[in-house]
Amino acid sequence: MIGYIAGALTTIAFAPQLLKALSTKSTKDVSLLMLLCSTLGMALWLLHGIQVNDPALIVANSVSLVLASSLLGLKLKNDCFK
Amino acid sequence: MIGYIAGALTTIAFAPQLLKALSTKSTKDVSLLMLLCSTLGMALWLLHGIQVNDPALIVANSVSLVLASSLLGLKLKNDCFK
Repeated sequence: MIGYIAGALTTIAFAPQLLKALSTKSTKDVSLLMLLCSTLGMALWLLHGIQVNDPALIVANSVSLVLASSLLGLKLKNDCFK
Repeated sequence: MIGYIAGALTTIAFAPQLLKALSTKSTKDVSLLMLLCSTLGMALWLLHGIQVNDPALIVANSVSLVLASSLLGLKLKNDCFK
């Protein structure tokens, strides 16, 4: 039970960050390297989940990968390629 | 193998964010709710790891919990209680 709550919390953690970045249009203080590590890490977790056929890993990391890569896209747009 | 690289990446992801926050002394764009979800989520993952006696969960989440709670402390200090 604790594991499910933990998984839900760490999976959706980037949602408020994404909403904040969208509303303030500012990502200056958000670390690019943090987003790169997170996005790549979640993509590999998803790949691992597919390899070992673990639905929990697949679902959780699909959600968090969408959130993290959206944030990464915003960060690149705001602070790297403007 | 992919799982280990994924775990390492998502575990250390907050390290560059913490270093950035320490060097710029600015955490304005970092979401408080993201840090609360992450810190609580990692604490619960650690608890779950202790309950099911999984050394990988315990080690990974001990490291990331220290990083996330340090960031949370900085965020509270910088933007909430000053």
